Amino acid sequence: MHKNRIQCPDLLGKVISAQEAANFITKGMVIGTSGFTKAADSKAVLQALADRTLNENLAITLLSGASLGHDIDGHLAENNILAKRMPFQSDPVLRKHINSGEVLFIDQHLSETAELIDNKHLPEIDIAIVEVAKINEDGSLVLTTSVGNSATFIARAKKVILEVNLSIPTSIQGIHDIYYLQEHPIRTAIPITESHTRIGTDFVPLDISKVIGVVFTDLPDSPALVALPDEKTKAIAKHLIDFLQNEVKAGRLSKNLLPLQAGIGKIANAILEGFIESDFSDLTMYSEVLQDSTFDLIDAGKVSFASASSITVSAECYERIFNNFDFYRDKILLRPQAISNAAEVIRRLGVIAINTAIDCDIYGNVNSTHLCGSKIMNGIGGSGDFARNAYLSIFVTPSISKEDRISHIVPMVAHVDHSEHDVDIIVTEHGLADLRGLAPTERAIEIIENCSHPIYKPHLKDYFQRACENGGQTPHLLKEAFDWYIQYMETGSMQALVEIEA
Amino acid sequence: MHKNRIQCPDLLGKVISAQEAANFITKGMVIGTSGFTKAADSKAVLQALADRTLNENLAITLLSGASLGHDIDGHLAENNILAKRMPFQSDPVLRKHINSGEVLFIDQHLSETAELIDNKHLPEIDIAIVEVAKINEDGSLVLTTSVGNSATFIARAKKVILEVNLSIPTSIQGIHDIYYLQEHPIRTAIPITESHTRIGTDFVPLDISKVIGVVFTDLPDSPALVALPDEKTKAIAKHLIDFLQNEVKAGRLSKNLLPLQAGIGKIANAILEGFIESDFSDLTMYSEVLQDSTFDLIDAGKVSFASASSITVSAECYERIFNNFDFYRDKILLRPQAISNAAEVIRRLGVIAINTAIDCDIYGNVNSTHLCGSKIMNGIGGSGDFARNAYLSIFVTPSISKEDRISHIVPMVAHVDHSEHDVDIIVTEHGLADLRGLAPTERAIEIIENCSHPIYKPHLKDYFQRACENGGQTPHLLKEAFDWYIQYMETGSMQALVEIEA
Repeated sequence: MHKNRIQCPDLLGKVISAQEAANFITKGMVIGTSGFTKAADSKAVLQALADRTLNENLAITLLSGASLGHDIDGHLAENNILAKRMPFQSDPVLRKHINSGEVLFIDQHLSETAELIDNKHLPEIDIAIVEVAKINEDGSLVLTTSVGNSATFIARAKKVILEVNLSIPTSIQGIHDIYYLQEHPIRTAIPITESHTRIGTDFVPLDISKVIGVVFTDLPDSPALVALPDEKTKAIAKHLIDFLQNEVKAGRLSKNLLPLQAGIGKIANAILEGFIESDFSDLTMYSEVLQDSTFDLIDAGKVSFASASSITVSAECYERIFNNFDFYRDKILLRPQAISNAAEVIRRLGVIAINTAIDCDIYGNVNSTHLCGSKIMNGIGGSGDFARNAYLSIFVTPSISKEDRISHIVPMVAHVDHSEHDVDIIVTEHGLADLRGLAPTERAIEIIENCSHPIYKPHLKDYFQRACENGGQTPHLLKEAFDWYIQYMETGSMQALVEIEA
Repeated sequence: MHKNRIQCPDLLGKVISAQEAANFITKGMVIGTSGFTKAADSKAVLQALADRTLNENLAITLLSGASLGHDIDGHLAENNILAKRMPFQSDPVLRKHINSGEVLFIDQHLSETAELIDNKHLPEIDIAIVEVAKINEDGSLVLTTSVGNSATFIARAKKVILEVNLSIPTSIQGIHDIYYLQEHPIRTAIPITESHTRIGTDFVPLDISKVIGVVFTDLPDSPALVALPDEKTKAIAKHLIDFLQNEVKAGRLSKNLLPLQAGIGKIANAILEGFIESDFSDLTMYSEVLQDSTFDLIDAGKVSFASASSITVSAECYERIFNNFDFYRDKILLRPQAISNAAEVIRRLGVIAINTAIDCDIYGNVNSTHLCGSKIMNGIGGSGDFARNAYLSIFVTPSISKEDRISHIVPMVAHVDHSEHDVDIIVTEHGLADLRGLAPTERAIEIIENCSHPIYKPHLKDYFQRACENGGQTPHLLKEAFDWYIQYMETGSMQALVEIEA
């Protein structure tokens, strides 16, 4: 019965099957599950729930840390189990159900969910389902590859189901730093002053009377899909590194920069790989997810410490980490997302934030979430937490995609997640726009000249010039501001418009 | 020679005329001036500069705390002196020059300007011009009715000009709390835990070798225009207070709520007046400006302490404050705007933020700055600092204006300053939309039903319903999303569109 995994005698008798655990979930319940960027998600109970409930219309509200792995969000959506989902998702099937209106999605800044629960601005959580590596003798919990909102779910939920994952070595204990936001009205500072500052415990306290079941699983996390750097991401990385090197030359940054954050995903990961060949040294990260690139940078001696809320890596990297855990143990820390993404800490540390845009407009307003204004892709995640509070807020995007049918620089974004006030730098494979201290009309010239693709550049210039004829702080032509999106929706290409105009 | 005002012997010899001081300013200089919401602005030197330079094309960059009084921004713009202006303005003449493209305006979160200067992300300041009540023996400075960015300007500028304002009693010493953000890479927390927490000094340190002139003035601040509560603002206040009372009943807030912030302006001021008749007690404020309503609430025994960056009140209230200064002295504190608007402190304290929207859309995206997408009104000011980090982010607006020609609830705002992620509550005279925990399509129903004006409600519903037919997380019809603005620009009324459609 894996007594090394369940050291708390009172909980040994609580071991049940995943199906039995899933049966505790009834219509309309609010469930809080572990899982952040597919790391440490519920692998047994949510799957059993999805399998159980064909046509039950359970209509649950599901909260997580961030995205879940193993296609579980899709299975739950397909089987008609989800009524509401927050604060993030990245599942293609769930996405369809959200965009068809079948599932309501509340897209939140990842720093805020725990606080909204604490403040009772969200409904009370009926059951927390949390993956753990081990239950200590006093019932306290050793988490696995992410922290996410798990500590808050455990503390606030009426009942708790634990998934003990045997595939995670118990030696993982020690890399978590569990800290709770204090309650109003009097709260003191979150006392982090460096990426490596430890402020909490390496376990999650647990009121064992809340536990209604303990389930075993041995499924590893869904592996991250890692893309090798290609011509575009290499070019973006080069522009960015050149810029940062110039900042060092100008005396604004030192050779170890300031703590780096990089958004989840293939592009950000590929760009971070570019730092391996750079002159920077003794770099640190204060981020929300540690991807393959982080461990490559640690191996290359470039990154000395990395703090985040999860480890989301390829199968190969996963092996490498756990086969050499003693090497990595004192170089990484996983925090609750209310802390990894805390406005207070990000601003204090002066994080250099690198996030991926879906598209951005000529004034530097950035869309991170929606396609053509209406359909959601994933969610805002932590991009707002970091972009708003960063020392430098950098957004990267290829200038075009789908051959040349989509320009990622557009006259006006049809959905704004980050306003021009929160965007310092935009980088595409064509170049870098440094927007610091520029007014909107200056920003437009900088972005169009440096970032847009040659196919679309003349048309962006034309839009901007004609808009300026009417004046304004942020000149726009409202009658045609969205024409590129409309053209794309109607013909499958923005380029079609350009050809017609030309 | 007012030796009680200039107690530092070395600076007595630096007294010059405003015109002489203005002559230090040469082409292309970067000037940092005191002044925040028209309080403690430069009243002598900037005016002398405006008078001096007909056709000189000085092309200066002017930084302030926030808006300046005495129409000085307009005079400077008219006389062709300004090339760039940041981080806020509210002058109708300057506004014209910005919207015509003659002056470049950099619209910044008010918390960020000082830090951008510290980080050298803005050009170095050549001359600081700062209003003071008194120069202490060691050269340190007692500020007047605002702090704004003055402490940073004094610390970072190459040269300093001081305006000693004889109309401000020297007894003002003691209400300022001057604190500097630390420098990267290692910074500790801003140690404020309550509105009244003092963390700094009541004076601004000064390197007297930088002083190139001391000028006397006796002009008081431009008085604030105060509007008495009218039917609309009374209705908005009632909805808001009812909501907060329900939060107390639900156990989420106590009777003294959490610290209040209210944006500058007539509407916010009138709404705060509504708290006088409420059941709340021992209220506190952590805001950026103290308006008449704050002092009315102090007089009524409702507010026990108020922290901000400035005092901007009517002439009557100004008299009242300075005639009873001993009564108010221990109930107010003025801080640098990097502190009054600090993300860290606002989130820690759990500020209830009440800001005015120009308009908002059916999903709760808020525009605070632009008319019809292009023309700027004032600027984002501190609204973003507070809305993003607040315990409750509340936006107020009348549902319509210009008789019924403008609806302030629109299908899609043509400029986004605050995305739906940062907006919890919207209030108009018709009602209150509580958006917490709602998905966009739920938000739309809540906003349209509770906040829109009956004239426009059916048309908002119609837009929303037709948009939903195409699906999406945030359903929109891009071909007509801006039709109301376009109609308004062409006919002077959004109502015209509604009539045509009906």
